[in-house]
Amino acid sequence: MSNRLRIGMVGYKFMGKAHSNAYRSLPMFFPDAPLQPEMSVICGRNEQGVQAAARQFGWSESVTNWRDLVKRSDIDLVDINAPSNAHKEIVIEAALHGKHLFCEKPLALSLADSRDMLQAAEKAGVNHMIGFNYRFSPAVQLAKQLVESGRLGKIYHFRAFFLQDWIMDPSFPLVWRLQKEVAGSGSHGDLGAHLIDLARFLVGEFHEVIGMSETFIKQRPLATEMSGLSSKRSTEANAPMGEVTVDDATLFLARFAGGALGSFEATRFAAGHRSTNSFEINGSLGSVRFDFERMNELEVYFTQDEEGVQGFRRVLATDPAHKYSEAWWPAGHTIGFEHTFTHEMLEMLSAISEGRQPSPNFHDGVACQAVLEAVERSIKERRWVSIEEM
Amino acid sequence: MSNRLRIGMVGYKFMGKAHSNAYRSLPMFFPDAPLQPEMSVICGRNEQGVQAAARQFGWSESVTNWRDLVKRSDIDLVDINAPSNAHKEIVIEAALHGKHLFCEKPLALSLADSRDMLQAAEKAGVNHMIGFNYRFSPAVQLAKQLVESGRLGKIYHFRAFFLQDWIMDPSFPLVWRLQKEVAGSGSHGDLGAHLIDLARFLVGEFHEVIGMSETFIKQRPLATEMSGLSSKRSTEANAPMGEVTVDDATLFLARFAGGALGSFEATRFAAGHRSTNSFEINGSLGSVRFDFERMNELEVYFTQDEEGVQGFRRVLATDPAHKYSEAWWPAGHTIGFEHTFTHEMLEMLSAISEGRQPSPNFHDGVACQAVLEAVERSIKERRWVSIEEM
Amino acid sequence: MSNRLRIGMVGYKFMGKAHSNAYRSLPMFFPDAPLQPEMSVICGRNEQGVQAAARQFGWSESVTNWRDLVKRSDIDLVDINAPSNAHKEIVIEAALHGKHLFCEKPLALSLADSRDMLQAAEKAGVNHMIGFNYRFSPAVQLAKQLVESGRLGKIYHFRAFFLQDWIMDPSFPLVWRLQKEVAGSGSHGDLGAHLIDLARFLVGEFHEVIGMSETFIKQRPLATEMSGLSSKRSTEANAPMGEVTVDDATLFLARFAGGALGSFEATRFAAGHRSTNSFEINGSLGSVRFDFERMNELEVYFTQDEEGVQGFRRVLATDPAHKYSEAWWPAGHTIGFEHTFTHEMLEMLSAISEGRQPSPNFHDGVACQAVLEAVERSIKERRWVSIEEM
Amino acid sequence: MSNRLRIGMVGYKFMGKAHSNAYRSLPMFFPDAPLQPEMSVICGRNEQGVQAAARQFGWSESVTNWRDLVKRSDIDLVDINAPSNAHKEIVIEAALHGKHLFCEKPLALSLADSRDMLQAAEKAGVNHMIGFNYRFSPAVQLAKQLVESGRLGKIYHFRAFFLQDWIMDPSFPLVWRLQKEVAGSGSHGDLGAHLIDLARFLVGEFHEVIGMSETFIKQRPLATEMSGLSSKRSTEANAPMGEVTVDDATLFLARFAGGALGSFEATRFAAGHRSTNSFEINGSLGSVRFDFERMNELEVYFTQDEEGVQGFRRVLATDPAHKYSEAWWPAGHTIGFEHTFTHEMLEMLSAISEGRQPSPNFHDGVACQAVLEAVERSIKERRWVSIEEM
Repeated sequence: MSNRLRIGMVGYKFMGKAHSNAYRSLPMFFPDAPLQPEMSVICGRNEQGVQAAARQFGWSESVTNWRDLVKRSDIDLVDINAPSNAHKEIVIEAALHGKHLFCEKPLALSLADSRDMLQAAEKAGVNHMIGFNYRFSPAVQLAKQLVESGRLGKIYHFRAFFLQDWIMDPSFPLVWRLQKEVAGSGSHGDLGAHLIDLARFLVGEFHEVIGMSETFIKQRPLATEMSGLSSKRSTEANAPMGEVTVDDATLFLARFAGGALGSFEATRFAAGHRSTNSFEINGSLGSVRFDFERMNELEVYFTQDEEGVQGFRRVLATDPAHKYSEAWWPAGHTIGFEHTFTHEMLEMLSAISEGRQPSPNFHDGVACQAVLEAVERSIKERRWVSIEEM
Repeated sequence: MSNRLRIGMVGYKFMGKAHSNAYRSLPMFFPDAPLQPEMSVICGRNEQGVQAAARQFGWSESVTNWRDLVKRSDIDLVDINAPSNAHKEIVIEAALHGKHLFCEKPLALSLADSRDMLQAAEKAGVNHMIGFNYRFSPAVQLAKQLVESGRLGKIYHFRAFFLQDWIMDPSFPLVWRLQKEVAGSGSHGDLGAHLIDLARFLVGEFHEVIGMSETFIKQRPLATEMSGLSSKRSTEANAPMGEVTVDDATLFLARFAGGALGSFEATRFAAGHRSTNSFEINGSLGSVRFDFERMNELEVYFTQDEEGVQGFRRVLATDPAHKYSEAWWPAGHTIGFEHTFTHEMLEMLSAISEGRQPSPNFHDGVACQAVLEAVERSIKERRWVSIEEM
Repeated sequence: MSNRLRIGMVGYKFMGKAHSNAYRSLPMFFPDAPLQPEMSVICGRNEQGVQAAARQFGWSESVTNWRDLVKRSDIDLVDINAPSNAHKEIVIEAALHGKHLFCEKPLALSLADSRDMLQAAEKAGVNHMIGFNYRFSPAVQLAKQLVESGRLGKIYHFRAFFLQDWIMDPSFPLVWRLQKEVAGSGSHGDLGAHLIDLARFLVGEFHEVIGMSETFIKQRPLATEMSGLSSKRSTEANAPMGEVTVDDATLFLARFAGGALGSFEATRFAAGHRSTNSFEINGSLGSVRFDFERMNELEVYFTQDEEGVQGFRRVLATDPAHKYSEAWWPAGHTIGFEHTFTHEMLEMLSAISEGRQPSPNFHDGVACQAVLEAVERSIKERRWVSIEEM
Repeated sequence: MSNRLRIGMVGYKFMGKAHSNAYRSLPMFFPDAPLQPEMSVICGRNEQGVQAAARQFGWSESVTNWRDLVKRSDIDLVDINAPSNAHKEIVIEAALHGKHLFCEKPLALSLADSRDMLQAAEKAGVNHMIGFNYRFSPAVQLAKQLVESGRLGKIYHFRAFFLQDWIMDPSFPLVWRLQKEVAGSGSHGDLGAHLIDLARFLVGEFHEVIGMSETFIKQRPLATEMSGLSSKRSTEANAPMGEVTVDDATLFLARFAGGALGSFEATRFAAGHRSTNSFEINGSLGSVRFDFERMNELEVYFTQDEEGVQGFRRVLATDPAHKYSEAWWPAGHTIGFEHTFTHEMLEMLSAISEGRQPSPNFHDGVACQAVLEAVERSIKERRWVSIEEM
C-alpha cells in the first residue's frame, strides 16, 4: 500500500468543507501519520457548485454523478456527507466496488437501513467509519481516559444536552433538515445522535429508554434556495407554507447496561444556545463536565482530593499530556471545532494503515440508530423500550 | 390584631435553625413589615436539646409535647419543621385549634394525607403556608418577573437539577432521610419537591410525567445517634446494616399544561455537587438560568438584543431594582441561603396581615405532592401518568 | 469578667447596620463563644434617626452625644463606625476612659493620626481591633491557610482589584465619601485600604510603592440630604455644584518585603462591577483567586497536581473543613456579605476573652495607613516611596 | 499584478508553523480574497530542519541563506519570524530589494533599530506589516467595534494581563527566549508587547508609563538543544548553569493620551495560567472583557441596559454579525488560536491588493517599541517616563 489514500468525497456543503479542511490539515499537523489522504475527487449534483468547491477546498477533480465515482479504480475510500437520505444507496454501491467507507452520521434514516449498510461493508471486507466527530475533542478524550482508567469509579449518572437556537424564528424556512423524508428526524437524529454516541463512548451500552418530543413550529415558509445549514428565506409576505415533519426537540431518559441513569435532551429551541453540546458524568470517585462551546476545557472533580480543597478543576486540554495536543500549539493555545475532524480522519487513516476497523465504525452507527429508533418507538407507544427488542 | 404574631415552632434542627434565624432577622431588615413574629415557644421531643435550642435561637419558652403547644391560646401560628412523617398529625391538630400554619415541605408522605391537611386548614379557616424557600431568592423572583411580564415569550423548555453528594460514601449511616417510613421518599421528595415547586411557580401546572429512580447503595450502617442532616457514624467495623428504603436518585420527564417540555433530576450521587439546585427556562423571546450555589446571580438572555452583542447576561440580583434587595446591603454585596427564609416568613406575615393566603400555601403543597406521586406511580407502572388521574 | 461584653456603638448607617447584625447573630450561630456581645447603647447625632436605628437593630438605648457614651461605666467596648474624620477623637477619648475599641477602617485620615490612636490605645492598655472584614470570608481564610502552610510555595505575585460603579453617573451627588475633609480619600482609602490589608494578611509587609490616581468627574451636584452610601439627589436642573476632592480611581505597583510583586487598583468607575473585590496570588507551588461577588468560592491551583488534570479548582468554602462553616448551614449552602462581620466580631470577643489583641488591630490599621499614605506621596512626588520612609 | 503574492519566509519554528498554516488556510476559507499567497520559499539555517518544514508545511522550495532569498525576483514578500535579534538585518536587506515585508513582533531589540527598519521600508516604498495577531480574534474585533462606535463611551480604564507558567520550574533550561542578546527582553517584549499593541488598538496612544520587573529564577541549566519554545533539558545533575538575562515578569502603570488609566502585567510565573492573555476596558457607557484562553468570547456590559437585567453578557463571537465568522462554521462552532494568523494574513494581502499599508504595520511596531523601551527606562531610572521623550 502506498502512503496515500485516494479519497472520493460525496457532498460539499457544511460537512464537505469540514472534511476537506481535515484532509488539508493532516499532512501539516500529523506529518508522521502512516497514511495521508489524497484529495482526489469531489462529487455533487450541482456542477457549478461542486466545481467551485473543488477549487476552494483543493480537490483535484470534481464530478456530478456519485455512481461513476464509486466505480473508479483510482479511488480508495468514499467519504459520504450528502444529505442523510442518500447515505444508504451510496454506501452499498461503494462497498460493492470495494471502497473503504466514511459516512457522516446518522448512518441511515432507519435502523434496518443502517444494518443493511453495515452488512454490505462487512461483506465487502472494507474499512468503515462513521462521523461522530465530537469524540475527537481532546477534552472528550481526556474524559474517556478518566473513565477507562477507573478514576471516576462506578458511573452513576450521565446527563447530556445539545441545545441550539438557529430555527427559533418562525419565519426561518423549511430547509431539508426540517423534512423527515430527507433528514430522517430533526433535533433527535441531528443532535441527539451525537449525545447517544458520546454516551456509548463514555459510559457503555444502553439498556432501555423512554422519550418525548415536540414540534413547536409546525408550519414554515418554503425555502426558495438552500445552502448548507441555512437557506435564502422567502421574502414575500404570502410565501407558501410547508409542514415541518421532524421534531424540534426530543428528550429521553435511559438506563445503561452498567446501571447508570441517563438524561438526554436535544433541541433547536433553546434561546441563547448557539451550539451547547454538553455532558456531565458522575461516578463514585469523581465527575467530569464538558461543554462544546468551550471545547478545549474539561471540568474534573475527584472525591479523593484532600478535604478543604475539593472542587471542580477547569482543565485546559492543551497540555502535552493531552491527546493530539503536541501536534498543534503550545499549552494554553486553544484549537477550534474543525480539528475534531482532523483527529477523526487521523483515526480513519491510522486504522486503515494498521489493518483494523476505525473507531467509531458502522457498528457504532447501527448501535446509535438502535437507540434513536428505540426512543422514537418509546415516544410513539408511550412506554419504555429496551434496546434489545430493536 | 396586634402587630405581633406569636409563633409556636415544632422542630429545632436544620430547618428549625433556619426558621429561627428568619424570625430574628425580620424586625431588623424588614422593620416596616405590617406584622412581626414573636418567638414564643419552641417544641422538641428531647428536653435538653430543645432547651438548648431555645436559648441559642432566642425562643422565650421550650416544651416537649406538641399536643400541648397547639392548644395554647398564647400562640397564633404553628410552624412545623419536624420530620416529614409528623407533619400531618400536627397540622390537623393545630388547625382544629384555629392556629395559622406554616409547614415545611414536603407537606406529607402521601397525596391523600396532604389533601387531608389542606382540607383541615380550609375548614378551620386559617392561613397556611408551605416552605418552598427557594422561590424567595431574589434571583428566582427576577426569573418569575421576566416570565410573568412576557419577556421570555412562550415557554418551550424547563430543565432542572438538584444535585448533591453528601451520602455518596457507602459508610455514611442510615439517617432518617434514608428511611421511607419517616422521610416518605429520598432525593425525590427532598430535592425533587423543590424543583417541582419552582417549575409550577415559573412555568405553571404539570400535565403528565414519566420517571425512573434508583437506590445505588442499598444497605448502610445503622446510625447510632442522629442530629439534623447528619449523624454520628457507627465506628465499629461490624456495625449492623439496615436497608435504604428511599431513592438515591429520581429523574423524570414532564409535559406542562402550557405546552412546555420539562426535564427533572434529583440525586444525592453527583460527586462534586454539594447543593446544585439549578434550572433553566427557554422561551421564544429569551432564557434564564439559575444555580443555587451562586444564588445571587441569574443569567438572562433576550433574543431581541441587538445582533453582535447577544449573550447570556450575568445579573447580580442585588440592585435596588431587585426584590428585597433594598432591605439588605448596597448593590454587589451578596446575601446567603438563610435569607430565602426571611423573605418567606415576610410573605407569610404580610399575607396574614392582609387577610389573604400566603403563596405558596397548602394548595401548592398538594399540587407538588400530586406531581411527586404521579412520578412515583409512573415509575412503578412504567408508563406516563397524567396529573389529572391523581 | 462576665460573659457579656457591653457595647456602645457610634454610627448607625451602613456599617452600623452591619455591626448590629453581627452582634445579633453571634449568640445564635456561635453560642459557644467565650464572650457574647450585649447591645447596650447606640449613638448618633440625629436623635430621631438613632432612636429608629436602636429599635430596628435591637439596641437597649440610644444617645446623641458620643462624649457621654464613652464615659459610661456600663460600657466595655466602643465600636466606632462614624464617618472617617470622627474616628480619631472618639478613639482617643474612649481609650482615655479605658474602653476596648473597635474602629472601622480607615483608622484615620492620616498616618500621624492613626499612630496617635494606636498610642492612645496602647497607653490605655485596652484591646483594639480594626474593621477589615474581608479577612473573615471563609474563602479568604482558606487562602490564608494555603499560604501559611506553604501549599502555594514562594509567593511571586499578588494582584488585586476593587472595582465598583456606583458613582459613574455624573449627576450622582457630592456625598461625604467624595469629600476629602470627611472621607480622607476616595476609592483609595475606601476600597484600596481593603486590598492593602488583604495583601498584608496574605503576602506580608510592603517594601515600596508607586501609584497614580484620577478624579474623572470633577464637579457634582451638592447633595441635599444624605443617608448611608447614597443620598437624595438634587432634582433641580441648576442645582449648585461642588468640587469632588477625592480620587475616583487609584492604582499602584508594589514590591513586598518578601520579594513578591504587587499590582493594585481601586476604582468607582468600572461599569458593570457593583463590588468586585478580587485578588489572585501566584506562588511557586500554586495559585489562588478570589472575587467577593462570589465570596463563598476560592479558586485553587496546585502545580504538583497530576499531569493531565491540572487546573484551577472551584472550591466552595462551605465544607466542614472550612473555617466557620459548621456554624452555618450544610455544605453547599452559601452565606452572604454580612457574615464576614459576624466572624470579625467573634475574633474580637474571643481575643478579649483570651486576653490577647484581636487580629487585625490598630497596628494593622497603622500599617495600612502607612501604605495608603506612601502611595499618596508617590503620586504627588511622582516617584517610588518606600514604606520605611513613612 | 497577478492574484498571487509569492512569499519567502524566514523561520520555521512556532511562528513559522502558524504562518504556514495561515497561508494554507486562506484560499480555502477566504476564496474571494483579492490576493492569495503563494508558498514559494522557506528559509532556515538548519538544512535538514528547513527541508522537513518545507515538506510538512507545503512550501515549494527551501533554502538556508536568507540573503539569497531576499534578492530573488520570484519573491514578492518576505515574512520574517526568525529570532528577534535577526529581524533588523533581514528587514533592511529585503526592503533594499523592494520586497514587501511581514515581520513578527517585536519589530526589533531596540527602538532605534525599529525606527531604522520603518525608515528602510518607507524609503523602499514597500508594504509592511507587523505580527500582532491577537488583534485578529473575532472577539477582539468586536471590542474594537464597540469602542469605535462609541458604545462604551469615554474610556476610563484599561487593564491587561498576559500570564503564563511555562518556565516556573527552576530546572527549565536557558532557552533563547531567556537570553537578552537574542530575545531583547523576556516577558515584557514577548507578552507585554501584545498587551501594549492591544491597548493602542483599542484605547489609543500612551502618554506616560512607570514599571517594575523581576527575574525570579536567575540561573538556569544551559539548554543542550533548542526547538521552538522549548528545548531538550540537560539531564545531568551537574549541568552547567547560565545567567537568565531577561525579565520573568514586568508590570507597569500608564496614562493614555485620551485620559484613561492603564495597568499592565506580563509574567511567566503565574501558576495555572498556560496563556491567559486578557484585558478589560471600562468606559462611561460600558465595559468589555476578553481572555484568550476563551478566545471566542467577549464579555460585554452596557450601562444603559434596562434596570434589573444589567449584567455582563457572554457574547460568543461566532455569529454572522461577527467579523470573519461567516468564513468559518455555523454560529456556536468555535475557532482556535491559529485563525488569528489567517485573518492577519488576509489583512496583509487585502491591503497590498488595495495599495494601502496593512494595519498594524511598522509604525505600530515602532510605537509599541517606544512604549516597551519607555517602560524599561522607567524601571532603570525609577521614574515616570513619557512616550514623547523617547
